[in-house]
Amino acid sequence: MATIKDIANRLGIAVSTVSKGLNGASDISDDMRQLVLDTAVEMGYASKKLKAGSTRKVCILIENMDYENIDQFGYEIIMGFKLSAARRHWEVCVIPADLNMQTAEKYDTYMLKNGFSGAFLLGFSLHDDWVKQLNKTTVPTVLLDNYIPVNPHVGYVGTDSVEGISIAVEHLCSLGHKKIAFLNGSKNSMVSDERYQAFLQSMEGQGLIPEENLMEYGYYVPDCAKYHVPTFLENGATAILCASDLIASGVIAELNKRGLHVPKDISVVGFDDLPLAAQLTPPLTTIRQDRTDLGKSAFLLLDGLIHNVSVSKMLLRAKFIKRASTAAAATDTQKSPQPQRLK
Amino acid sequence: MATIKDIANRLGIAVSTVSKGLNGASDISDDMRQLVLDTAVEMGYASKKLKAGSTRKVCILIENMDYENIDQFGYEIIMGFKLSAARRHWEVCVIPADLNMQTAEKYDTYMLKNGFSGAFLLGFSLHDDWVKQLNKTTVPTVLLDNYIPVNPHVGYVGTDSVEGISIAVEHLCSLGHKKIAFLNGSKNSMVSDERYQAFLQSMEGQGLIPEENLMEYGYYVPDCAKYHVPTFLENGATAILCASDLIASGVIAELNKRGLHVPKDISVVGFDDLPLAAQLTPPLTTIRQDRTDLGKSAFLLLDGLIHNVSVSKMLLRAKFIKRASTAAAATDTQKSPQPQRLK
Repeated sequence: MATIKDIANRLGIAVSTVSKGLNGASDISDDMRQLVLDTAVEMGYASKKLKAGSTRKVCILIENMDYENIDQFGYEIIMGFKLSAARRHWEVCVIPADLNMQTAEKYDTYMLKNGFSGAFLLGFSLHDDWVKQLNKTTVPTVLLDNYIPVNPHVGYVGTDSVEGISIAVEHLCSLGHKKIAFLNGSKNSMVSDERYQAFLQSMEGQGLIPEENLMEYGYYVPDCAKYHVPTFLENGATAILCASDLIASGVIAELNKRGLHVPKDISVVGFDDLPLAAQLTPPLTTIRQDRTDLGKSAFLLLDGLIHNVSVSKMLLRAKFIKRASTAAAATDTQKSPQPQRLK
Repeated sequence: MATIKDIANRLGIAVSTVSKGLNGASDISDDMRQLVLDTAVEMGYASKKLKAGSTRKVCILIENMDYENIDQFGYEIIMGFKLSAARRHWEVCVIPADLNMQTAEKYDTYMLKNGFSGAFLLGFSLHDDWVKQLNKTTVPTVLLDNYIPVNPHVGYVGTDSVEGISIAVEHLCSLGHKKIAFLNGSKNSMVSDERYQAFLQSMEGQGLIPEENLMEYGYYVPDCAKYHVPTFLENGATAILCASDLIASGVIAELNKRGLHVPKDISVVGFDDLPLAAQLTPPLTTIRQDRTDLGKSAFLLLDGLIHNVSVSKMLLRAKFIKRASTAAAATDTQKSPQPQRLK
């Protein structure tokens, strides 16, 4: 473990300058402070304060995810995390992360400079600069829904998508649906891949053939519905399983616009169980991710990593919430859904 | 939630008799006590003591697993669990489970009768009576290496076998091995299935073809080596990956008996990193399962389930431990291993 003296020797500067750099004193240049911090990280320096656990401070870094009110996905996750952290007397800083932060400074340097013992990263994707650095970080780090191989300092927390998707498919099959469309989340994401595989397996498990033209990616925006719903209808879908409640809300709006009634003409299932799910017309059948528990589990995992328990993965149960947006598939004798052509 | 009175009404007996049954009083018959307990469980009765959390008592039920000294797989798992439990002031009872216990009484009844708020099950297999009842249990329960679908009261803890196997295969490939044999654990177990799939994927990921006659099940006993090592050798294996250190110890003994030298003639990799792994000749290259951390994580998970955080899965990192039982594969110009025929 490198000491302040080692850093001073490496840089050929005074120990007092290193100390100023590490403690954020204002009487050295920004460049010198950055050099000291980067060298400290590179040499594996850990401050006495962090080592002794006297500063109990972690951060939630958040990007591409709304969290400011209870209707948004991140809100309860952050609440749950803070709740568990408070119980163990940890301070939590919630910090919106942007690309500038990530290009300005290395991840480990940022953490050392700010005295964080660990971090929970929300909404990051695998091509983010800081996520790319996680293969080698020594900072205890928890990701939501993203997996970093091998590094014992990084773990991930998420909801068991495989179980969630399979429960939804079973439910739709039990209602007689055979032509089930799947409007997935973002392409090139671990969770979307898992859900896609789970959808294929569940359909096959039910003796159904998943059809290429009934599977699309919706990038978690309601607006995607207008591109994909028409194709699904042309290909005979009687039910649409969506990767989020927001997507599902867009799908229902698009179906209504075309004169189709949910669930009489076509069934719709969401994912997440955001508060809005119960407010939609009709109230949405969905797969619940317990966001408060996700936050609590993320803190538990981070606390474990800080104490050298290398958990790589912690998955929560998905819970099926039956509401009014799903019903029996129209039988062959009934008229199959005939959408109005939009002008 | 059923009350003592509800149970008395259902059975047509006095409240005082129900109370005696629930509290283990000796002045009612065994049959009556059992009837009271079974009815209480069936009606979803939870005693006030358990509800109020005033008894903080959980159990470790253990079957088919040695745990009495540090050389055995279960020892550190139990230590880790007890350590975490003690820190939160929970009492832990370690109870060897046998088939009689399981046929004598339902799982939930046993837990209620003994005042356990939850249980950690070690070494059970999916065909055990009590495990079959876990689909419907309301007792917070953690399993090692076994997965129960859907039930939010049951979770599992284990080591990331997929990562472990893939690290081992990569290591052997980097040493030039192409004919890698895999001596797996017990058939029809979730972990063995996962490891088998991981082996196939890792081999294919390295551009190698996994061969049917180089993959067998060894049921975690060293003695299995004498059945499978000869076949592996006949089929040209230059390395044997084993699902446990115990299997690997048997494999090394069998190879030695046939005049083959590990690792010059053939490389051997274990799994677990039991204390014996470092004591073997040669010291065994293996994949470490951190058993203390498994125990700690199991307690964390159980604590979560008791507080209604439905974690379904918690996986620990596998860690590669390089010792002396692996070396470069003999090149084509060198003599390939020629085992002596045993009389």
